[in-house]
Amino acid sequence: MGESSNHAQAQAQAHAQAQAHAPPALLDLTIDNITPNTVRINSQSADARLTYLMARLVTHLHDFARETRLSTGEWMAAIGFLIGCGQICSDVRNEFILLSDVLGLSLLVDNINHPKPPGGTEGSVLGPFHTHDAPVLPNGASMTSDPAGEPMLAVCTVKDTRGRPIAGVTIDIWETDSSGHYDVQHADRDAPSERCVMVSDEHGRFWFRGLKPVSYPIPHDGPVGRLLQLLNRHCWRPAHVHFMFGKDGWDRLVTALYLRGDPYETSDAVFGVKKSLVIDLDKVDKETAKEYGVEEGIWLLKHDFVLTTQEETEKLRDQLATEALQNLGLNLKLVDHLPVPDLD
Amino acid sequence: MGESSNHAQAQAQAHAQAQAHAPPALLDLTIDNITPNTVRINSQSADARLTYLMARLVTHLHDFARETRLSTGEWMAAIGFLIGCGQICSDVRNEFILLSDVLGLSLLVDNINHPKPPGGTEGSVLGPFHTHDAPVLPNGASMTSDPAGEPMLAVCTVKDTRGRPIAGVTIDIWETDSSGHYDVQHADRDAPSERCVMVSDEHGRFWFRGLKPVSYPIPHDGPVGRLLQLLNRHCWRPAHVHFMFGKDGWDRLVTALYLRGDPYETSDAVFGVKKSLVIDLDKVDKETAKEYGVEEGIWLLKHDFVLTTQEETEKLRDQLATEALQNLGLNLKLVDHLPVPDLD
Repeated sequence: MGESSNHAQAQAQAHAQAQAHAPPALLDLTIDNITPNTVRINSQSADARLTYLMARLVTHLHDFARETRLSTGEWMAAIGFLIGCGQICSDVRNEFILLSDVLGLSLLVDNINHPKPPGGTEGSVLGPFHTHDAPVLPNGASMTSDPAGEPMLAVCTVKDTRGRPIAGVTIDIWETDSSGHYDVQHADRDAPSERCVMVSDEHGRFWFRGLKPVSYPIPHDGPVGRLLQLLNRHCWRPAHVHFMFGKDGWDRLVTALYLRGDPYETSDAVFGVKKSLVIDLDKVDKETAKEYGVEEGIWLLKHDFVLTTQEETEKLRDQLATEALQNLGLNLKLVDHLPVPDLD
Repeated sequence: MGESSNHAQAQAQAHAQAQAHAPPALLDLTIDNITPNTVRINSQSADARLTYLMARLVTHLHDFARETRLSTGEWMAAIGFLIGCGQICSDVRNEFILLSDVLGLSLLVDNINHPKPPGGTEGSVLGPFHTHDAPVLPNGASMTSDPAGEPMLAVCTVKDTRGRPIAGVTIDIWETDSSGHYDVQHADRDAPSERCVMVSDEHGRFWFRGLKPVSYPIPHDGPVGRLLQLLNRHCWRPAHVHFMFGKDGWDRLVTALYLRGDPYETSDAVFGVKKSLVIDLDKVDKETAKEYGVEEGIWLLKHDFVLTTQEETEKLRDQLATEALQNLGLNLKLVDHLPVPDLD
């Protein structure tokens, strides 16, 4: 081909590209053409990831309405539900995380983002009650101010998948008081309680005094509680203690330990329980009591947590993402570990 | 088969049914099994429609997360976005309707619920600015208190598809003032303005004084405005007047009339424009001025609206729903005009 032919071809291509990127004429939109038009008008940013997220969001939202022939009344009820969720939120209450939890989305997102190679401690849901004001406590300290609870000594380690201790890991720990409420659920809260931040020592150890956890209902005085009631679902979580591990170079681990035999062990309202996270408590014997300076006979939680490196987690996540997207038949590539359409 | 065999079979069937309806054991949920388990735990109410809505919602929500490999940061950003939408809502602001509008959902839901037989006036988006405190005004009254706007006389009729006038129709009418703001957007609003309710007379007529509508940006100082900015989308709506028609036995018509030639005629931020709703304004001539007691030369909007009966709309909606669901390959039946799974 000559130069002018190349030029004409390039021009035609540029024109086609401009057409493809030009916003559509948004007129006479119908049940059948609203989706591609909305996707196109949402595809004008330079952010390929945002474009992809919006395209899938709009497609699923519209498909949902089409498959259900969503009524105006149902649509308005959903609008009212979302407003209610937003308006009950505060610095210490997050109804949308709760909604995500009871719909199984939180667990799914955690599983997608934090796959575990063999031996790594499994993750669980973050829940809406983690705060950023917990005190950093030294090993052996008590994180509870509740005299009514059953005292528990927790003696834990944090190691890598080859069993080597990891020092200097920051561990956020939080649980309810003996009444089944987190501190932030008490209107008169003036300081954090039943929560702390610890740092693992050179042997990867951390230990603290807390309470034997109790099962409790998630907040059910708001829209999410009413939804569960409509669905004939209970709102209980089995007894557990939350742990979150962070250290540069290591994949952040959000998890929890659950007590075996809890009546809600297999029906957690937020889907968080994994068999590997269900534990038995023991009782502190004489020797342990002396070693840790606690009363003999109180509850004892012993657990060894295993972190995985950020690098191995990212590699595994990329590999699982690639496989999953191939299985879904989607023509995508990973950019910064996140899928975007592969237009090459 | 003998009686005991029948009995055993019935027992086995009952057992299988109980198993199918029993809540699943929610343990070790993964990317692959979280969806069916969530759907099952949500399927315990007696409300088949609610069960179906939740099943489709959860499936789409989870598929969205799986297809995008939604990151924890993106999930948290979405949670924050939803909280922001909820918290900016007030008695006079509905950010979730606005969100539904800019995502094309509002238009889609209107189209699904209010299909029009030939000749019926097409619907448009309700938008977030309809209120319930507009005064009922007699024919000929002015609904505006804005001295800065260009005065407009609107002379309309409401008829059936065979051209017969419909008396006693309640018509909600609302538009912005000359600055492009609805009354509720002014912090110092003490009474409704640029909005009224009229009732059609025995000839199906209604007429009022308003303002020539102007194009205006949807509220863009909140989360939805920031989303549009991220998406490189403008936030403008072409000039229009909203109308909502209601009368027992007639399908509620939510619509609007748009001015031809508006710079945003084909790029309405909320997808509301339909060719049949784009109109030309005229000027009031001497005779009309005298007839309606207005100044000669002001703007004149003339339009004939056509309502369809509730019965014919429901029939058409059922028919379109049945066809659509068959095309989607879904095994559904309509109960109270809404699809639920057909388990028979």
